[in-house]
Amino acid sequence: MKAVVKTHEMGAGAEWRDVPIADVTPGDILVKVEKAAICGSDKDRYRWEPSMGNPNFTSPIIIGHEMAGRVVEVGPGVTRTKAGDLIAVETHIPCGTCIQCMMGDQHICHNLKVLGLNRDGCFSEYVTLPQACAIPLPKGVTSEQGALLEPMGIAYHALSKVKVAGNSVLVVGCGPIGLMAAQLAKILGASCVIAVGKYPFQREMAKSLGATLVITSDPGEVKTAVQDATDGYGVGAALEMTGSVPGVGIAFECMRKGGELVLIGFPKPMTFDFQTSLVRKELKVHGQHGRRMYETWADLLALLKAGIIDPAQYVTSDVPLEEFDKAFELAGREGQIKIVLTPVS
Amino acid sequence: MKAVVKTHEMGAGAEWRDVPIADVTPGDILVKVEKAAICGSDKDRYRWEPSMGNPNFTSPIIIGHEMAGRVVEVGPGVTRTKAGDLIAVETHIPCGTCIQCMMGDQHICHNLKVLGLNRDGCFSEYVTLPQACAIPLPKGVTSEQGALLEPMGIAYHALSKVKVAGNSVLVVGCGPIGLMAAQLAKILGASCVIAVGKYPFQREMAKSLGATLVITSDPGEVKTAVQDATDGYGVGAALEMTGSVPGVGIAFECMRKGGELVLIGFPKPMTFDFQTSLVRKELKVHGQHGRRMYETWADLLALLKAGIIDPAQYVTSDVPLEEFDKAFELAGREGQIKIVLTPVS
Amino acid sequence: MKAVVKTHEMGAGAEWRDVPIADVTPGDILVKVEKAAICGSDKDRYRWEPSMGNPNFTSPIIIGHEMAGRVVEVGPGVTRTKAGDLIAVETHIPCGTCIQCMMGDQHICHNLKVLGLNRDGCFSEYVTLPQACAIPLPKGVTSEQGALLEPMGIAYHALSKVKVAGNSVLVVGCGPIGLMAAQLAKILGASCVIAVGKYPFQREMAKSLGATLVITSDPGEVKTAVQDATDGYGVGAALEMTGSVPGVGIAFECMRKGGELVLIGFPKPMTFDFQTSLVRKELKVHGQHGRRMYETWADLLALLKAGIIDPAQYVTSDVPLEEFDKAFELAGREGQIKIVLTPVS
Amino acid sequence: MKAVVKTHEMGAGAEWRDVPIADVTPGDILVKVEKAAICGSDKDRYRWEPSMGNPNFTSPIIIGHEMAGRVVEVGPGVTRTKAGDLIAVETHIPCGTCIQCMMGDQHICHNLKVLGLNRDGCFSEYVTLPQACAIPLPKGVTSEQGALLEPMGIAYHALSKVKVAGNSVLVVGCGPIGLMAAQLAKILGASCVIAVGKYPFQREMAKSLGATLVITSDPGEVKTAVQDATDGYGVGAALEMTGSVPGVGIAFECMRKGGELVLIGFPKPMTFDFQTSLVRKELKVHGQHGRRMYETWADLLALLKAGIIDPAQYVTSDVPLEEFDKAFELAGREGQIKIVLTPVS
Repeated sequence: MKAVVKTHEMGAGAEWRDVPIADVTPGDILVKVEKAAICGSDKDRYRWEPSMGNPNFTSPIIIGHEMAGRVVEVGPGVTRTKAGDLIAVETHIPCGTCIQCMMGDQHICHNLKVLGLNRDGCFSEYVTLPQACAIPLPKGVTSEQGALLEPMGIAYHALSKVKVAGNSVLVVGCGPIGLMAAQLAKILGASCVIAVGKYPFQREMAKSLGATLVITSDPGEVKTAVQDATDGYGVGAALEMTGSVPGVGIAFECMRKGGELVLIGFPKPMTFDFQTSLVRKELKVHGQHGRRMYETWADLLALLKAGIIDPAQYVTSDVPLEEFDKAFELAGREGQIKIVLTPVS
Repeated sequence: MKAVVKTHEMGAGAEWRDVPIADVTPGDILVKVEKAAICGSDKDRYRWEPSMGNPNFTSPIIIGHEMAGRVVEVGPGVTRTKAGDLIAVETHIPCGTCIQCMMGDQHICHNLKVLGLNRDGCFSEYVTLPQACAIPLPKGVTSEQGALLEPMGIAYHALSKVKVAGNSVLVVGCGPIGLMAAQLAKILGASCVIAVGKYPFQREMAKSLGATLVITSDPGEVKTAVQDATDGYGVGAALEMTGSVPGVGIAFECMRKGGELVLIGFPKPMTFDFQTSLVRKELKVHGQHGRRMYETWADLLALLKAGIIDPAQYVTSDVPLEEFDKAFELAGREGQIKIVLTPVS
Repeated sequence: MKAVVKTHEMGAGAEWRDVPIADVTPGDILVKVEKAAICGSDKDRYRWEPSMGNPNFTSPIIIGHEMAGRVVEVGPGVTRTKAGDLIAVETHIPCGTCIQCMMGDQHICHNLKVLGLNRDGCFSEYVTLPQACAIPLPKGVTSEQGALLEPMGIAYHALSKVKVAGNSVLVVGCGPIGLMAAQLAKILGASCVIAVGKYPFQREMAKSLGATLVITSDPGEVKTAVQDATDGYGVGAALEMTGSVPGVGIAFECMRKGGELVLIGFPKPMTFDFQTSLVRKELKVHGQHGRRMYETWADLLALLKAGIIDPAQYVTSDVPLEEFDKAFELAGREGQIKIVLTPVS
Repeated sequence: MKAVVKTHEMGAGAEWRDVPIADVTPGDILVKVEKAAICGSDKDRYRWEPSMGNPNFTSPIIIGHEMAGRVVEVGPGVTRTKAGDLIAVETHIPCGTCIQCMMGDQHICHNLKVLGLNRDGCFSEYVTLPQACAIPLPKGVTSEQGALLEPMGIAYHALSKVKVAGNSVLVVGCGPIGLMAAQLAKILGASCVIAVGKYPFQREMAKSLGATLVITSDPGEVKTAVQDATDGYGVGAALEMTGSVPGVGIAFECMRKGGELVLIGFPKPMTFDFQTSLVRKELKVHGQHGRRMYETWADLLALLKAGIIDPAQYVTSDVPLEEFDKAFELAGREGQIKIVLTPVS
């Protein structure tokens, strides 16, 4: 089959290679990829950026982890799915036995493996996966919608960590996950959603998705807007989704006492004053990595089946998989939110 | 009456002055102080140390906030207590109407006033208090025990923020509140309590209070001990009680993925890597300020009445109030945990 | 002033009497009633029905407890409000010192007093209240909206006890609080809201408020509809708001394993099988009495200010207070949801 | 191999039969039983009592589900354990894909299978199990301790549903699980543990395990003792472990407002007044079935490794498996708590 392969030696870019389809061993499944989507971390790996632990990936590797596809074959002992099922894919592969797996936190398994990082991912015609990664999709859900559930799950999981109902929620950063979070915060009953977006099209999109207030990323403007919108208290909940030092700074500064803050991105080391920013305010701060396996999926599928969300609305381009170079170029451009890749065979 | 008074002009030290007893206005109570205790923040104010917001206090002011005493008189509208009651005292005075007070978080009120900081405290023969500060003590509880419940409440509130039952708990710092936390963690069913103490007498005390393991504050030793005690995972919960940069550093480093960390002290600004220390581990970090009003008090009183805790065991010296200079000198010395002051009249 | 007074001797009905305005003692406030509303429990008292503990009320008493009005005078020690404020009113008067009040559950105080039951209520021109009952209303909120927040708070508090986001929610009973619950469940992100209503106008109203599905109160129909809507699992959350034996029965029968059920009404004693209905399903069942003081109010005010809810939309008639007999006759009639009473002076 | 087999035709009793060892299919493991223990539900099946759904079991079946043993062989795709491991066994077999399994509640799976009820259990020399049932035991844990973790997990899971720390906890019923609950409540920091036991040896045992107060099962005595021990409020938490109508009655009657109650047994249908027993008190009532997979196991193993609990202390007799008739006769006799069965081969 054809696949987008990356090695340490490559530097920027990736290669369109012929590779064998892996054998289906016990507990694994073989899936024909219908739609894949580009994540920010894929871009980092493609462009060889120093963040996201590039040196840590196993090489050569097929990159990509957001996808939906049709199960072609299942190995012995597989019970979660069967041939013919349309499935979405969970990126994280837990060991099932470490302390976090025992406590129900498989997504942060001590021995976590990640598709497209430690095991071949999905920018290819076929992919073999452990059955734990399979999320069968209900009738009526398309593979495009299914492929987008993984990133939307990050936004949903972030919101599940804080009180949303009747609360003021600040979303710092209007990349794909920030936009999804702004929409979901509104859907889950936030009284006020304040979205901070760098680019005009992001702010317009956030507004159209239901944000109460959209602001540029100027820290002074954000602080003033938050103070005005919250009677001077600050917000009760914030989601930091830029992964940048200024983003983290403004998020902490905008919190009211007793507020809850979720950090999703990967900021560089920074100077931080725990005393004034965290302790005296008695904040609760949540780091986040991935999604719950599988509460997040269950909730999103329920909202999707009910027509309350449509992840496909975030797709701005659909590119043949073979043209992945073009797709990576598109990703992050003004006006683009999510780029979908379609294997043509 | 006689009182320990501090002004901005004084620099280090405080004065033993004659001051009038304040009038008992509606909603207030007048209390005869039986036992007061010295908190680390009192030492900071006495010694005029730059932390703890010394410049912010209202001056001149009677310092001190940990105490128990007998209610002498109650103003109109008081329903929480009556003359003759022995009460312990909550340090925090909430406004009752801000968003935090509405949400049940009075202890982090937006308009919080603090005894001994913005309103005359208790290092004096009498003190007037808003009735919200009064915690009536059940029969059989002594004023010495009552005076110690306020700091013990900080330790208890910290533990109430994390899963203790069956969990490994790291307590960084064996000052009074650290020691209390180590004891309480054991009482609440931690499977393993690891206490980090700078001084030998602190470590001995922690051990005798039930800590499973006591370690010096050397970061390398702490990390090794935690790894050994937790099968290499790190702890599930940690309480940082030194308020120091190295203390915060070692606490984060010892956490397992998905762990919960409470920060109680006031560290200086420091370099912090949110990515590796918080986000990738999906940690939950709680800042803490004070105690719940009044869940913390209710629980501690229940444990005290049942004979499961005895706050008086932390008292290492009892000094006449007039000799407060000597008491402040004692505070923090090797072998000393809590110093109690007794007004002699 | 004029007031609607009830005594034990009266049997059905109540009297329009001249009564003195009570003195404003410390901690109390005097309020001019602008809008009051009729609760089901008022009807029970008016009609002298055996439920709702009629024999327990203090007599003679002014009935009524849902209201908003203008503060005219405040007694010594009052800090929550001031003369001139428009306030809504919390019905429950906590003691502030019992174990529930200590634990933050003032609304279920051990020594609870209730407006219109143990202390004169609000079907009158003026009412004196303990300051704990005062909920200052933000600018722009009308007294009609304010008066309806108390019953809406029951619906909101019920929903706050269960997982709503992405969940299937069954609301049994489309009286005023049931309708409010159906609307709020949708606002808070339920994926599917199934409302059971006896009367066609209730079902139409539920539908227009956002219910996904509306069903008659026939148990067989309800069960079939729930099975169909939930892939045969049953609902994840249910609110029983009829207070009837069949209502409780159908609610339990429609639950999936692990579901959460809130009971708000007052059913008669009934035969119940804990084994099959509760234990084997590992259900969580919540009794409910009133609203949180004051989390419920804070959240509803935030949603109201944001224009997400408008409690006034539930008002179907506004009757001069003097015509209370006519108002009670209207209450519960087809097409009527909430009846508001306006003192004319 | 030899096994204790039961069929529908048998009525009371069971047979000691030769049966083939099942093949080890993908995902399954073969375990040599070292210690098994008798559960109350085994007695019901043995004695053919109408409760516990006897008609529902698959017949013929090997009964028994509490056990520890050595893994002999693992099928393809098994990752949770390997040959040579000493494991304890979880009784419940989840499907992994239903809504409860998705939400992290595998133990109440919609398609749950139960060892010894729908699939051959462990009163035999060998047993094959799905790998999901395997709980590897840390070094130093004996098979006797391991076999007792399953029932102890019921007690622990019950306590994890309520606030234990600083709370008053009533345990109704001093059978094996009730005794375990009384001990664990104390270990987890309850301020007061009140144990209700029918027999003197149960009450003595409860006392020696740390119960603050032990009472006979006379409802009047229980109520008086609870009132006295809780300043007239009632308990904050209760565990009903008799599965009897009077047990449920007294548990509800002893609750304070806002309390939490867990029902673990299987009472017959009874008359119940939701209004006074549940709604007006705003109680939270939890049905319970089994244990968390695998949080309960993780916590208990941590407490066991730390030497805080020793499940083996509940074993009062160890009988060769072949003498199961004698063992069933012993079970429930005065002085007996848990009976262990040992296959001799």
